Amino acid sequence: MAKSAHKYVYNFKEGDGKNKRLLGCKGANLCEMTQMGLSVPPGFVITTEACLQYYEQGKNMPAGLMDEIKKEMAVVEKTTGKSFGDPKNPLLVSVRPGGAMPMPGIMDTVLNLGLNDETVKALATLTNNERFAYDAYRRLLQLFGQVALGIDGEFDSIMSAAKQALNTTDETKLTAADMKRISEDFKAVIQSQTKTDFPQDPYTQLEMAIKAVFGSWMGKRAADHRREFNITPDMANGTAVNICTMVFGNMGNDSCTGVAFTRNPATGENRLFGTYLTNAQGKDVVASIRTPKEIQKLRREMPKVYKELEDLRHALENHFREVQDFEFTVEKKKLYALQTRNGKMSAWARVKTCNDMVNEALMTEDEAILRVDPKQLEQLLHPAIDKSTGAKPVCKGIGGSPGAASGKVMFDVDRAEQAGKAGEKVILVRDEAKSSDIYGFFASQGILTSRGEKTSQVAVVAREMGKPYVCGCKDLVIDFRARTAKIGKQSVQEGDIITIDGANGTVYMDTVPTVESEFVGDMLTLLHWADDIATLGVMANADTPEMAQKARSYGAQGIGLCRTERMFNHPSRLPVVREMILANSPKERQAAIDKLMPLQKEDFKAIFQAMEGLPVAIRLLDRPIHEFLPTQEEVMTELSLLKEFEETINAMEELPEAMRILDPSLQKFIPGIKTTLEAIHKIREQNVDKKLIRYKEELLAKVKAVAEINPMLGHRGVRLGISYPEIYAMQIHAILEAVAELIQEDHDIKPEIMVPQVCTLQELKWVHRLVTAINDSVTKKYKVNIAFKFGTMIEVVRACMRADKLAELAEFFSFGTNDLTQATFSFSREDAENKFLPLYNENKILHDNPFEILDIHGVGRLMKMTVELGRKTKKDLKVGICGEQSGHPDAVKFCHAIGMTYVSCSPHRVPIARLAAAQAKLLEKTLKYD
Amino acid sequence: MAKSAHKYVYNFKEGDGKNKRLLGCKGANLCEMTQMGLSVPPGFVITTEACLQYYEQGKNMPAGLMDEIKKEMAVVEKTTGKSFGDPKNPLLVSVRPGGAMPMPGIMDTVLNLGLNDETVKALATLTNNERFAYDAYRRLLQLFGQVALGIDGEFDSIMSAAKQALNTTDETKLTAADMKRISEDFKAVIQSQTKTDFPQDPYTQLEMAIKAVFGSWMGKRAADHRREFNITPDMANGTAVNICTMVFGNMGNDSCTGVAFTRNPATGENRLFGTYLTNAQGKDVVASIRTPKEIQKLRREMPKVYKELEDLRHALENHFREVQDFEFTVEKKKLYALQTRNGKMSAWARVKTCNDMVNEALMTEDEAILRVDPKQLEQLLHPAIDKSTGAKPVCKGIGGSPGAASGKVMFDVDRAEQAGKAGEKVILVRDEAKSSDIYGFFASQGILTSRGEKTSQVAVVAREMGKPYVCGCKDLVIDFRARTAKIGKQSVQEGDIITIDGANGTVYMDTVPTVESEFVGDMLTLLHWADDIATLGVMANADTPEMAQKARSYGAQGIGLCRTERMFNHPSRLPVVREMILANSPKERQAAIDKLMPLQKEDFKAIFQAMEGLPVAIRLLDRPIHEFLPTQEEVMTELSLLKEFEETINAMEELPEAMRILDPSLQKFIPGIKTTLEAIHKIREQNVDKKLIRYKEELLAKVKAVAEINPMLGHRGVRLGISYPEIYAMQIHAILEAVAELIQEDHDIKPEIMVPQVCTLQELKWVHRLVTAINDSVTKKYKVNIAFKFGTMIEVVRACMRADKLAELAEFFSFGTNDLTQATFSFSREDAENKFLPLYNENKILHDNPFEILDIHGVGRLMKMTVELGRKTKKDLKVGICGEQSGHPDAVKFCHAIGMTYVSCSPHRVPIARLAAAQAKLLEKTLKYD
Repeated sequence: MAKSAHKYVYNFKEGDGKNKRLLGCKGANLCEMTQMGLSVPPGFVITTEACLQYYEQGKNMPAGLMDEIKKEMAVVEKTTGKSFGDPKNPLLVSVRPGGAMPMPGIMDTVLNLGLNDETVKALATLTNNERFAYDAYRRLLQLFGQVALGIDGEFDSIMSAAKQALNTTDETKLTAADMKRISEDFKAVIQSQTKTDFPQDPYTQLEMAIKAVFGSWMGKRAADHRREFNITPDMANGTAVNICTMVFGNMGNDSCTGVAFTRNPATGENRLFGTYLTNAQGKDVVASIRTPKEIQKLRREMPKVYKELEDLRHALENHFREVQDFEFTVEKKKLYALQTRNGKMSAWARVKTCNDMVNEALMTEDEAILRVDPKQLEQLLHPAIDKSTGAKPVCKGIGGSPGAASGKVMFDVDRAEQAGKAGEKVILVRDEAKSSDIYGFFASQGILTSRGEKTSQVAVVAREMGKPYVCGCKDLVIDFRARTAKIGKQSVQEGDIITIDGANGTVYMDTVPTVESEFVGDMLTLLHWADDIATLGVMANADTPEMAQKARSYGAQGIGLCRTERMFNHPSRLPVVREMILANSPKERQAAIDKLMPLQKEDFKAIFQAMEGLPVAIRLLDRPIHEFLPTQEEVMTELSLLKEFEETINAMEELPEAMRILDPSLQKFIPGIKTTLEAIHKIREQNVDKKLIRYKEELLAKVKAVAEINPMLGHRGVRLGISYPEIYAMQIHAILEAVAELIQEDHDIKPEIMVPQVCTLQELKWVHRLVTAINDSVTKKYKVNIAFKFGTMIEVVRACMRADKLAELAEFFSFGTNDLTQATFSFSREDAENKFLPLYNENKILHDNPFEILDIHGVGRLMKMTVELGRKTKKDLKVGICGEQSGHPDAVKFCHAIGMTYVSCSPHRVPIARLAAAQAKLLEKTLKYD
Repeated sequence: MAKSAHKYVYNFKEGDGKNKRLLGCKGANLCEMTQMGLSVPPGFVITTEACLQYYEQGKNMPAGLMDEIKKEMAVVEKTTGKSFGDPKNPLLVSVRPGGAMPMPGIMDTVLNLGLNDETVKALATLTNNERFAYDAYRRLLQLFGQVALGIDGEFDSIMSAAKQALNTTDETKLTAADMKRISEDFKAVIQSQTKTDFPQDPYTQLEMAIKAVFGSWMGKRAADHRREFNITPDMANGTAVNICTMVFGNMGNDSCTGVAFTRNPATGENRLFGTYLTNAQGKDVVASIRTPKEIQKLRREMPKVYKELEDLRHALENHFREVQDFEFTVEKKKLYALQTRNGKMSAWARVKTCNDMVNEALMTEDEAILRVDPKQLEQLLHPAIDKSTGAKPVCKGIGGSPGAASGKVMFDVDRAEQAGKAGEKVILVRDEAKSSDIYGFFASQGILTSRGEKTSQVAVVAREMGKPYVCGCKDLVIDFRARTAKIGKQSVQEGDIITIDGANGTVYMDTVPTVESEFVGDMLTLLHWADDIATLGVMANADTPEMAQKARSYGAQGIGLCRTERMFNHPSRLPVVREMILANSPKERQAAIDKLMPLQKEDFKAIFQAMEGLPVAIRLLDRPIHEFLPTQEEVMTELSLLKEFEETINAMEELPEAMRILDPSLQKFIPGIKTTLEAIHKIREQNVDKKLIRYKEELLAKVKAVAEINPMLGHRGVRLGISYPEIYAMQIHAILEAVAELIQEDHDIKPEIMVPQVCTLQELKWVHRLVTAINDSVTKKYKVNIAFKFGTMIEVVRACMRADKLAELAEFFSFGTNDLTQATFSFSREDAENKFLPLYNENKILHDNPFEILDIHGVGRLMKMTVELGRKTKKDLKVGICGEQSGHPDAVKFCHAIGMTYVSCSPHRVPIARLAAAQAKLLEKTLKYD
């Protein structure tokens, strides 16, 4: 009993392949593959619990762990007929990390464990290949040195020197003697750096390697990765360690090692995709050091093995029902599967493979919907190079991760990170990108490398992040010292702007215009499945007929927010709006308003028509008056210019006389001056300048009068509407007349009127009385019956608190989470983002910028309360959200979970929200918010 | 059955004296007195429901009402042996309004109903007093004309003319013939104004009078009164009407009419207090027309009646167990009680009578506590004339309502109202103040009249409002036309400032300094009773040792809010604070901070000592940086002055030469100019001006850098603390060292550290780490153990939403309802109060200013949720409030109801809060907030 409670080690034959939390992703899949009967080298998993215990006990191995390991080792020894540390027939093992969430290339692996000065000789004898044996040994020494002992750099220089001595860059040119010497040198490095010898005892090696793997769970790279991908302890806690019998892809030309996807992770094509290296060991393929071969070449090189690989591909897909990314090694023609995991793919590939696998009955529609990360869809909508510009690429590499991006060239990870954090757009340009550079390219728009392959770790991560990546660009030559590069025939300095297109691997000088990609058919299919499942509606925020049209083409089910202030702000309208503001009497104000009304009516008609048959919620004017006026500084500058002008004119009067005295040669300029003066005098006779000065003075007075200490909390929205009833009356009139005219023309219009900044039912009543009165008069005038909905924005905290009262009159609520976030945090958005939010994010005081990512814990809790209160009064109250955060999948899921009716987001996020809404429905039982 | 559902009329013998809502206050008490066996003229009440029905039915008498009235009239006829409209023995009645809440003098009364051209003759015969009969008739005609027919003014001129003709001002000089003629004239007025005759039918008179009374419920005066006293429909809805047999105080010199309090309403003295007029009818006494006599004179004039009055006084107090304000009439030596109600009193009298009545076992301590309106206590704390100034009064009248006030003399109600609303302090100066002037003196600081008595309606209202009132000031002579007056020997113009002291009736020229009144013993007793009952603590907001001392003397149980920014703002500190802000390096900043630290420490020590043994919550710096800097405009002005100075100096260099040429007589000024220039040059050699300009330029740059768009939502509070850790570190250091030093001196100190503007637990953790570290070092340095509490302000909505999390670390919460109100409403206080709040209040969109009166429905609901969330984590979490609204009794009750631990308010509101806290405890079962 006590034993089962402390079981830390599971043989691949017994481990539960479903329990990734305990066994890690890699370990679980090794168990799964073993139990499927695939050819997996014998081995066992040390659980994540052991790792947590290790930390719990102050970085000490949990009691009994080594005993369990030895027991399992005995089983492996029995299976393989070899023995760990046996100087005759030694068992060699690999030690590989693997947590519950894949973190490719992030943590450290040690190969060839079990070799020492004795067993290496046995290996040489057994394989009859001394070079191979010592190559394996020096690899162990290097990996062990780096991973378990923390020695860096020196191993590489020794290897380089050895190759240089032979005047080659090809490792295979090194002889057995070279490898033997290198091994000795490596041991010397270890001795000199650690003051102890390389441990000859295999179990000492094993224990140290396991500890090192445990330790790398808390290393900077792993921590960075978890933060970037939001991997929290409840998703993955601790790493498992896989101990696996070594098989060797470097046993000669009938051996190889490779990585492959069961389908193409960039395009989704249903064909084995991958690369391999003949006579090489694992890390060589993924580490971008030697350029590997396309997997299709293996069909000719080892036809039988290729056939087995194809069988493996189908077996894996049939079993895991998802595209697999797997590693294999061929040791003397025998194929081994070393690991498999769900493949990371571009959005394109993800969508296509999901569609295909549904058609192949490998997965259901629901599963397909859950498999696509809505955030990835954004890639499909991301811009691509605009080919119509005729821009010519300066060079071409391999398309590692699709999408186009422009930015300043940076050669250095740290500088790229710095510039990126400072808000600059950066393209990281490197010879090879290592996964340890990861924190550098979080901050860049895209990556360009001279080496590397589509299957490299960097490409995998870049695709997942949707970062454009061009790799293997041979015409890129970097001079790090000078901080310059040649790209094709062009020279670039650090800081120059280039554009890359990761879809086809092209590189351009300067910024190249981009276009939005078209909707791919597979995505449309997926989104239609999604719409069938989702119960949460998806609307769009749109202020113009063009945006409305676009939103509709993206599948928006209506407009959840049409802002009228943008119409006021239009340059052609602004003078009239200012007339309205500066009016000295209600009559003057009405005159200006009368000019605005037909314009607004046309605005509304066009939007209504674009959304025919779908609801359109128009928000009455929200912004404070002063936003329609110039700033105090602007008017003051204009005024002082005008006054200076007066003085200058006066001075000019004297000028001709002065010129005459000064120098007769100036005489000829005098007529010109006089003509100018006469023209000016004519204008002045009409007092144009005086009037202008008076106007500007009035303007200045008004600007000062409407100035506010905290404008975001000021005289705006319904407060302004109640103070200047003519404005709202005009807007309501324009809306209802637009509807009436369209109804007369037989259109199907679904108007909604939405009141901003409401804090009490009384305000809503006030506007409602106005709406009712105007509706009566419009109905009478046009002799049509107008069906419209009347609702309120919920963006003031008090509106949340009084939601039960507001719901007495409001037919719908729409959360304005921009303002609501501001009020909930008492953060002024601009001030916060300029002053302290970066510091807050850095210090982990706030994880996200709540103006970008909905703050579910605070604002969300308030929203939940509000929905509950509102529905208490009106059971089927329509509730939506129209803040900027609303297109984010997490926000969509939250809105579904609290029973909202719809989200309304910017048009290009509509597809994302549609998919997220379907996922929310499918996952609703697991969505828990407190 | 149908009848009981529609019963609109109750005889005094049957009405339920407890049901004031139905019968009105006056009607219910008439029933009560009748049923007690007191001598009340027979009559009945028409219910408030009848009034509501009247409005419901578009101002028509409810069906069946007149029938019920006639039925009850028959009962009264039977009791009195007289008959309504009987030309032989006519029954006369009064028609008096009276709602559930007393509105003294606000609504209209009609007397002597039932008189007409016939019955007046019968009355003359029966009383053998023709003058009396026609006096009664002309009174009916006048009152009916004014109240039921809306005729104003002319009646008074006819009376005046009649008196003038006799060369008298005394009405009693008018003969029967005069009265007869006046009656005829009055009827003619009615005919000419309404084109119909005065109705001779008594029931027509009655129905019209009842309708008029119903109508006056919605009149301007009544509406103003209800608004001013916050009388809402759930407190009083509609007026009842009392129909009561007339008794006559004007039946000769053995008759009189009077009003009295069972105890002195100004001082609380336990002695009959009131006034009467011999041979006069009701309204004469209260209307301030004839100056009435002190009630004690009646002891000699009618000893038997006086004895009966004393009995009545005791009977009323024993029954109602509260000081009564009653009306009586003596008709030919027979005493009748005409109405009674709970007496309105000055705060002094209220407190004293409550104490006395507890001692007399007429009420319990609990009842005494509930009887005093906490808001009234403010009067006791209001200033009185500072006698030490030796200011001499210019005249002396009667103290109508205690308290001292200064303001501009205004003779006109409308102008007083206008000036008052514009924010000026006004003393309304009138010959006589009518209750219809009420809206004029809402706006004034105090009232001064040449006529009138302590018992007048105006005095009653003034006392209730706590407005100083000096009446009966015979040395006041007003010339309204000229808008001047003589006060004693002094002439004053409208707009001149005077000071009045309503405690003793004195009037002073100009503003006279005032002192705060001393705590009266009775109030202390009451407050001690209150403290014994209350469970809600009362703390004070205090930033200085003086305020702390004062708060303590007012009974504060500690300091709930000590703001540290006020210490920063002190003129002597500001330069150092600016040094800190302008520092160009952390080192420079630290240097400035090091100067501030000992100063802050001394601040804290002094406050801690003042509050020895009681908790003191110190709030770390809250205000945004820019509040410690001059404004951009200020610095720009200074800079341009400095630059102009430079130019002027240069110009001065040329001056002596120019002077010499211009006029030799100017020569003598040249040495002076040169000396000045030399002095300036010396300073300039040290570059003082250049340095100053550079400093100002740096200052300007900083001012611009810290400027914020919405400073209330900006870089302040804990956000600032986290951005500039040195500042909070200094403050925490100063607090803890102050405590440590005091502990060493054996003081009992209870420090609390409070963090402002918190929105997430992470912020609190950040500060807590700082506090812990500093505490460790201080503890080590002083070798003392410091027990302190660590808590958070709750003034950001997100803090409310995360209260459960915050309570994990915070030992107490303190609601900052100023900021919280701002965030809940999204109202910037200054902007709202200047721009739209007045409009909102006027239009009833918001009833109150939420920055003055806690918004229980919105902010309150949020607070309730917060307390619940916080207590979920920490069952006994200490929760308080320190916003400005917290001293208001309604806020105190609310805080008690939601289970808060304490309120913290400004020192002078502490007694109010103590009393309110006790009331809240006593009423807790009735306090319902949703």
